[in-house]
Amino acid sequence: MRKGELTRTAILAVALDLASREGIEGLTIGLLAEKMGMSKSGVFSHFGSREDLQIAVVKQYHDRFEQAVFYPSLQKARGLPRLRAMFEGWIKRVSVELASGCIYISGAVEYDDKPGPVRDALIAIVKEWREALLKCVRLSIEVGDLKENTDPLQVVYELNALVLGLHHDTRFLQIPGSIERAQLSFERLIQNYQTTESLATKKLPPATKKAAQPL
Amino acid sequence: MRKGELTRTAILAVALDLASREGIEGLTIGLLAEKMGMSKSGVFSHFGSREDLQIAVVKQYHDRFEQAVFYPSLQKARGLPRLRAMFEGWIKRVSVELASGCIYISGAVEYDDKPGPVRDALIAIVKEWREALLKCVRLSIEVGDLKENTDPLQVVYELNALVLGLHHDTRFLQIPGSIERAQLSFERLIQNYQTTESLATKKLPPATKKAAQPL
Repeated sequence: MRKGELTRTAILAVALDLASREGIEGLTIGLLAEKMGMSKSGVFSHFGSREDLQIAVVKQYHDRFEQAVFYPSLQKARGLPRLRAMFEGWIKRVSVELASGCIYISGAVEYDDKPGPVRDALIAIVKEWREALLKCVRLSIEVGDLKENTDPLQVVYELNALVLGLHHDTRFLQIPGSIERAQLSFERLIQNYQTTESLATKKLPPATKKAAQPL
Repeated sequence: MRKGELTRTAILAVALDLASREGIEGLTIGLLAEKMGMSKSGVFSHFGSREDLQIAVVKQYHDRFEQAVFYPSLQKARGLPRLRAMFEGWIKRVSVELASGCIYISGAVEYDDKPGPVRDALIAIVKEWREALLKCVRLSIEVGDLKENTDPLQVVYELNALVLGLHHDTRFLQIPGSIERAQLSFERLIQNYQTTESLATKKLPPATKKAAQPL
């Protein structure tokens, strides 16, 4: 990386941290310059405006989310194993973020009535993740893990709701054991849509499942 | 009402509207005085501080929520009919508020990492509502509508999650038909916990149900 790119990356990392704590709206060039020990014009030379900076933060968040949650899930078999990996990665991400907050979730509340390019950027990344989930649910039906009459949009609404509920209960109400609740609800939710064949497969004893995994 | 009380009530109504739009943190004595055509000291004479005002708004919101959702649900029979009424009233409230926003939900994000009296007041009212839901779920088990092995806290987590999902999908993503999705998910969720007897009762034809209602 050239020096300019390195500086930009470093600014973005600090900006992401700030936005997670103070909200995207709490992000200003002045505050960022102070945290970086740089001049305001120094920060401006990397991001043309406060709005550009906010959008870059949103995209950076999305990149990290994809690296941590989406790409690893593609290692799993199409269908329910992949859907389960997506959900597991998602709630782990939300719990890792408990100290700071998820930009998808806090951003949705910050920007629900503030039209503009930042809101558009946020909606675009949230929709991208939901499209990925939707595709995975559709594949789960195709491979016979979920019933044919499953409404994929309904499943996506319910999965997203469970994650919002987890975020709320851990971060705001600070209720212990909320992650286990989310996992339990996921399994119950999926059972409503699972085919008998797929339910039977799931009932393999743990030993058999372990043996099938690479050493 | 005395004149002082009337003024206080009027200020509170405007403050609640402002807080729904701009967030509780967006509420200032200055902005409120401007909207009311009053002096700042005039507003201060009714609320000792900005924090007192914010707490009064939170309590006012809670009173209205109770009037609109909780008290009407008590007219329904203990158990599932009451639980259904509570959920129906809740999602209607969230959809009425779509133009402005639910203070319980936006407040949870605004104050999740801001300790202090406003956060405490918000947590207190949210917990009060959850206690009411919890009690209703427990009664539903007692009267035999829900299975004995139902975990009431799990049901409350799931109900809250469905409402957060609805708020997110309607207000941020503006997806049409989200209320119907929430209703469908509620029915599916409840079916997981319903006793066979209670499921059988639910299958009465609509005509019978209508006839049993007062004219």
